[in-house]
Amino acid sequence: MKSYMTMTQEELLNEKHALEKEFQKIKDLALDLNLTRGKPSSDQLDLSMEMYDMVSSKSVLRTEAGTDCRNYGSLDGIDEAKRLMAGFMDCKEDQVIVYGNASLSIMYDTISRSMTHGVLGSTPWYKLDKVKFLCPVPGYDRHFAITEFFGIEMINIPMTENGPDMDLIERLVRDDASIKGIWCVPKYSNPQGITYSDETVRRFAALKPAAEDFRIYWDNAYAVHDLYPDDRDVLLPIMEECEKAGNPDLVYQFCSTSKVTFSGAGMSAMGMSERNRNDILKQMAVQTIGHDKIKQWVHTRYLKNMDGVRSHMAKHAAIVRPKFEAAHEIFTREITPRGIGTWYKPKGGYFICFEALEGCAKAIVAKANEAGITLTAAGAPFPYGIDPKDSIIRIAPTFPNLEEMKKAAEVFACCVRLVSVQKLLCE
Amino acid sequence: MKSYMTMTQEELLNEKHALEKEFQKIKDLALDLNLTRGKPSSDQLDLSMEMYDMVSSKSVLRTEAGTDCRNYGSLDGIDEAKRLMAGFMDCKEDQVIVYGNASLSIMYDTISRSMTHGVLGSTPWYKLDKVKFLCPVPGYDRHFAITEFFGIEMINIPMTENGPDMDLIERLVRDDASIKGIWCVPKYSNPQGITYSDETVRRFAALKPAAEDFRIYWDNAYAVHDLYPDDRDVLLPIMEECEKAGNPDLVYQFCSTSKVTFSGAGMSAMGMSERNRNDILKQMAVQTIGHDKIKQWVHTRYLKNMDGVRSHMAKHAAIVRPKFEAAHEIFTREITPRGIGTWYKPKGGYFICFEALEGCAKAIVAKANEAGITLTAAGAPFPYGIDPKDSIIRIAPTFPNLEEMKKAAEVFACCVRLVSVQKLLCE
Repeated sequence: MKSYMTMTQEELLNEKHALEKEFQKIKDLALDLNLTRGKPSSDQLDLSMEMYDMVSSKSVLRTEAGTDCRNYGSLDGIDEAKRLMAGFMDCKEDQVIVYGNASLSIMYDTISRSMTHGVLGSTPWYKLDKVKFLCPVPGYDRHFAITEFFGIEMINIPMTENGPDMDLIERLVRDDASIKGIWCVPKYSNPQGITYSDETVRRFAALKPAAEDFRIYWDNAYAVHDLYPDDRDVLLPIMEECEKAGNPDLVYQFCSTSKVTFSGAGMSAMGMSERNRNDILKQMAVQTIGHDKIKQWVHTRYLKNMDGVRSHMAKHAAIVRPKFEAAHEIFTREITPRGIGTWYKPKGGYFICFEALEGCAKAIVAKANEAGITLTAAGAPFPYGIDPKDSIIRIAPTFPNLEEMKKAAEVFACCVRLVSVQKLLCE
Repeated sequence: MKSYMTMTQEELLNEKHALEKEFQKIKDLALDLNLTRGKPSSDQLDLSMEMYDMVSSKSVLRTEAGTDCRNYGSLDGIDEAKRLMAGFMDCKEDQVIVYGNASLSIMYDTISRSMTHGVLGSTPWYKLDKVKFLCPVPGYDRHFAITEFFGIEMINIPMTENGPDMDLIERLVRDDASIKGIWCVPKYSNPQGITYSDETVRRFAALKPAAEDFRIYWDNAYAVHDLYPDDRDVLLPIMEECEKAGNPDLVYQFCSTSKVTFSGAGMSAMGMSERNRNDILKQMAVQTIGHDKIKQWVHTRYLKNMDGVRSHMAKHAAIVRPKFEAAHEIFTREITPRGIGTWYKPKGGYFICFEALEGCAKAIVAKANEAGITLTAAGAPFPYGIDPKDSIIRIAPTFPNLEEMKKAAEVFACCVRLVSVQKLLCE
């Protein structure tokens, strides 16, 4: 198979005509497949349904400590839920606050509180002329939406295969006190699936930011979401590293069971130092009397401990892995030899991040839509929705079934080829 | 029985000595009773446990419209939950957003959003020199805690038996554009148990505030919490009245099932005009992907509709009513003839609001604590915790059992007598 890069104009034209015919055939199939969001599939959700056999009108919904989960109270969560979520975050039980159904809401709240009340007594951000955040790119669109909503200026930080560019981060946070945070998805990053190296984590923990209220927003969304349970990436525990570096307050960690049990009906948690925790609990006491303890009770009875979580996640992996591998195989066969795209093969997480030829991402997404495959808007993984090279496309393989995923990957490959050949013809 | 008001010094002294002996006997009982918070009792919570027999691993957790409740989505709640909560708020289904487990969090969010983003395009409140709220007193301490947390100046508005002093409110909101809201518990008000009269509701709906971003925060916490199902207070539907008055955007309504099903594990909702709703949904889309739909599903299957809610609440009333009546009878016997305190006899809600002689509330609460009865801090029902007359004490009869409530009411009456006699002796 010949790379498009070495094709003559005539060869490219022939290829284009052949692809246009193929594309028309695909359109005639009137497909309707959606690869936009990182949603679990229905059979993944089925995995956790037994949870609901563990609670009935006969249940005694009391915690180990005797608290009635049906009544008010327990602002920071029940002990057994704190212990479980500490396992997700590699931290201590007393460093955890358990929240409601979404870690996204915790992150939103964290930014919102910093705007109105500052961080550990610092000046509220709304009183400052300028507040900036560092955004490793490509990254998670919902992170960027939060900072954009609060008028926080976002600065792109390039990703490497070891995590974000630490040289750049170290320099920026040292020199600019208006930089108050950085969004990180440190394990199986969204969307590339990169796990930060030990060195990257240690350099994060050792940051010397000019702003005392600078925090690392460590969204450990895929802490236990390994595709290969026997060959999983291991992330260095950030909170332990921060303590070792004498920076215990530097990081806020976030996680949830959204893709472990039920998306939108699981529980979420935050991990942080004692000082940060006390600061946040003061505000939380105004905001709520406590989150849903019955859900915490059921989740902890069902998942039990990290061994329980790992074995449960292995079942997810068995469902999800073939879809990732199918996409990987089809792309490797159809795209790699033609030299028109690359991607990092993730060992976990929820996405494949496809890097097309420059200037092709939007056109590929449009072409795929035309063929009945809905993809996340090109640009979405960047602050303000602007991909400077127009080359990144996020693919979410989990929601469709395996056959649909295979079909979608083939159609996608055809769209990549067609758009690439058009681009090369114009150059 | 003689009123303390007509007693001679000598009679008061004799009464004091007798009461001191009685108080010592009570102390010897080493009681430990808590009348602080409006928490349902364990047998009230038992009423809803059958809800958990309605869901098992075999359940098909899909909405009427076919949405999988286990997955992400449905930012504003599932249709059946919106319909049910519309019944609580006497509004239309499409005026509702269903939230998480606490209406308190909705109110916090609403103030927080107004601080950072304004209301329907108005200037964000943090950019204003001064923001003020009207606070009918006595009122709900957690309301006042939110406005205090955001540095909003609170102005006391006296309550009458028809609701807050509307003459004062009309004048203040007309003349002062820095007044942005008023906290209301319109039915069985916290803590007095007063239901706003039709005229009061209509005058609210017809307010002409100087501030375009003024809103009535209508916390309909006790919408269905009638102690006498056949003789319940009926609150005029505020949203309908606002529409009639040409002020559809004037009100935000809040409610929850916290004291219908499970406190802290129920669902909450907000009702508002279409313009307000669209404004809020824009922010919510940044904050969350959606609240817990499985909980919405189970709640709507269990409670069904407003008839279901009413018959369920009648069971609550059967448990709660005797406790209210016991307190009422004991106070009527021990306190009324002595002329040392009054209260409004509520037909619903969660509290009895006792008004002692001026300058006695703190001392009564302290005395009760000494006798093993924990009461809400005197002053709590007022902004900044300051009761100008030091006379109001909030009593929450629901959590103890009937015998405990009787005992607590007797001890309380003794404390009221002792403190009152001491006060009268010093005058």
